This record gives sequence, structure tokens and C-alpha cells, in this order.
Amino acid sequence: MTTQGKVTVDLSVSLDGFSAGLGQSEDRPFGADGGDGWGSKLHAWAEDAEEMRLQLEMLGQTKAFIMGRNMFGPVRGEWDRPWNGWWGDNPPYHGPVFVLTHHAREPQVMEGGTTFYFVTDGIESAFKQAREAADGGNISIHGGATTVNQYLAAGLIDELRLRIVPITLGAGTRLFDGVGQLDLEQVESRDAGSFMHVTYRVLS
Amino acid sequence: MTTQGKVTVDLSVSLDGFSAGLGQSEDRPFGADGGDGWGSKLHAWAEDAEEMRLQLEMLGQTKAFIMGRNMFGPVRGEWDRPWNGWWGDNPPYHGPVFVLTHHAREPQVMEGGTTFYFVTDGIESAFKQAREAADGGNISIHGGATTVNQYLAAGLIDELRLRIVPITLGAGTRLFDGVGQLDLEQVESRDAGSFMHVTYRVLS
Repeated sequence: MTTQGKVTVDLSVSLDGFSAGLGQSEDRPFGADGGDGWGSKLHAWAEDAEEMRLQLEMLGQTKAFIMGRNMFGPVRGEWDRPWNGWWGDNPPYHGPVFVLTHHAREPQVMEGGTTFYFVTDGIESAFKQAREAADGGNISIHGGATTVNQYLAAGLIDELRLRIVPITLGAGTRLFDGVGQLDLEQVESRDAGSFMHVTYRVLS
Repeated sequence: MTTQGKVTVDLSVSLDGFSAGLGQSEDRPFGADGGDGWGSKLHAWAEDAEEMRLQLEMLGQTKAFIMGRNMFGPVRGEWDRPWNGWWGDNPPYHGPVFVLTHHAREPQVMEGGTTFYFVTDGIESAFKQAREAADGGNISIHGGATTVNQYLAAGLIDELRLRIVPITLGAGTRLFDGVGQLDLEQVESRDAGSFMHVTYRVLS
């Protein structure tokens, strides 16, 4: 029996349960969440150097990533223009990233060890490929909320690390849409001053 | 100028933003939240003596209460059967409680200083009466979520004290339904082990 790493989620969520506002676009990757363009209120923590250090440390403990196509970028339908993610030539993943899409594309090798693989045959297939690539290490179901919902509903997530941000959005993409009744265990919390960072283990 | 107390809300909320499950009834006052009857998962904290002591201490700092009729009881429509609340002869309020209803009823004096007043002319009227009764003291918009929503939308709440409980419900009454975009400030947090107790100041 091979030891398997944890399957984690790390997301910012508003007090009313949204992980993104409406209307994602190339100029506003997190949608309308009350911030201006990249100045997302849900992700204001990223402007804090210490928070960013903690985040990169967590990424470093993760050996494979799965993300939805909308998190990868704003291109919809066919890959009819060049797009290699929001993160520049050297993305912060430094490992394999499996992007869920309905449109096949060759793997995209980036600097620093990140490779984007495009998976067209569903979330279970992406999960299996990520497990193999992680080789016993942790996997991050990296977002957005729609992708996380599917993995939560499939019972494939071990741990949720939420930044609970003191705003309400009223509209957008809900983290727990379609998930139904779940029991979790609160395993760790950190008061970051302007938000709470709470880790939950998924029990059922 | 008279000094005015704070207008507070103290509620338990699931990770997906519900303050009650579906199907409230006399045997199940909090609706279907995964608990069994009064054994509400959202309110499991009430079984802990220290948590209950903190809650009663908070109630003691509150000079007037406003609650919706569904929080007061399961009777709907006319007051066609005796009902004096869920809390027995000596309710834990020890002061005036203004119950929002469409059906007029004489004030109900209880033991220990609690009197239930039935307000039929809307949330602003109840608020005005509570302000007068509190005489500069704190007012609690005591619930349920539907009542809190209306006061939030009207901009009348200063502080939210939330118990963030690690369950999801998938259905029920949402705390922030119809409230839209709000900015809050996180002012205090307490890790209670099985849940988070976080206090927010409403900014806008």
C-alpha cells in the first residue's frame, strides 16, 4: 500500500459563502467582489508579504494541482489564442497542474517546473493523474469554486483551508453549491487580523 | 444627545451561510440542520456549560431584544392557541422582547423581568420601541435569519457575533439573503475548539 498525501483546498470565501464575484474577465480575474480589477477584496491578503510567504510555503508542500479552466484563464471554447495562465512565465506551482477542459491541448511546459496538462475526460481522470504525479505527496484542488464543488460532492477532498473574509457579495460563485450536508472538523485557526484562516477536515 | 448602545446580532451560521435548516416545527425549532430534534448541530454549543455561561453574560449586557415571530414560536397566522415562547416561564431575556408579527396580541408578562411585546407595524417601529426601552443600552436583533436580513438591509446593525459551525446544510434560511454587498471589520475572534466565534463590525 502506497502512502497517499492529503487532498486539500485553499480558498478565500466571503461571509456569505462566495469564492468569486460575477463577471470574471481578463482584467478582473476574480469577478465583481467589490475590489477594483486585480484589487480583489477576497484576495487582498495577497498584498501582505507574510501572507504571501505562508501561501507559497503551502504551495511548496503540494506536489500536484487540479484547477478548472476558468481559474486557468478567461479563454472560452476552443484554444483560439495563446494563453498560458495568469502567472507569467514562471508560475508559483513548480509541478504538474491538471486543467479541466472540454477542449484538448498539448501540455504546456513553463519555467520553474510547472507544466499545465489539459484533461478532457473528467474530474476522476484528472484526480487519478494528479495522484500518480504527486507520488504520495499532497494534491491541491486549486479552484475555482465550481471545480471544488464537484470534488467535494464526489467525496474526494480531505481538508479545506479557508480564508474567511469579512465581506458579503450577494452574488457570484458559491463554494458549497450543490454539496448538500457535510460534517467537518475544525482542526486549526489563525486570526490574521483582517480575516480568519481556518482549516477543516472533511468528515463525511 | 443621548448615548446609544450597540445594535448586535448573535447567531450560529453554517459554513455555507445558513442559520437554520428547512422545516422548523415545535419538535424541531431550528429546522433540519443534521441534528435530531432539539439536538441542533448549529446550536450544539448550547450543551457546553462554559459556552452557555458566555451567552447568558452577553444576554445580560443587552437591554432590549427584537425577534421574528418564527423565532418566538411555531404558531402561524392568528394566535389561536396559547404560546409564550420556547423558553418556559422564566425566559433568559429578563427585559423587553419585541416580537414582529402581523397579528396583534396583548403584551405577555413573564417571570424574571421578560415581557413579550407584539409589534404589528414593521421593523422600524420595533426598532424605535426597542431603542426607547433599552434607554441607551444594547439592543439585540435576536433572530431568526429573516429578521436579521431585514435589519442588515436597512443598515441598522452595528455588530455581528457569529458562531461559524463546521457543517454545511445545503438548504435552509441564509443569514445574508438579500443583503447584497457589505463591508465588515473583523474585531475579535475566539477558537472555541469545535467552532469559531468571530465578531464583526458592520462598516457599510
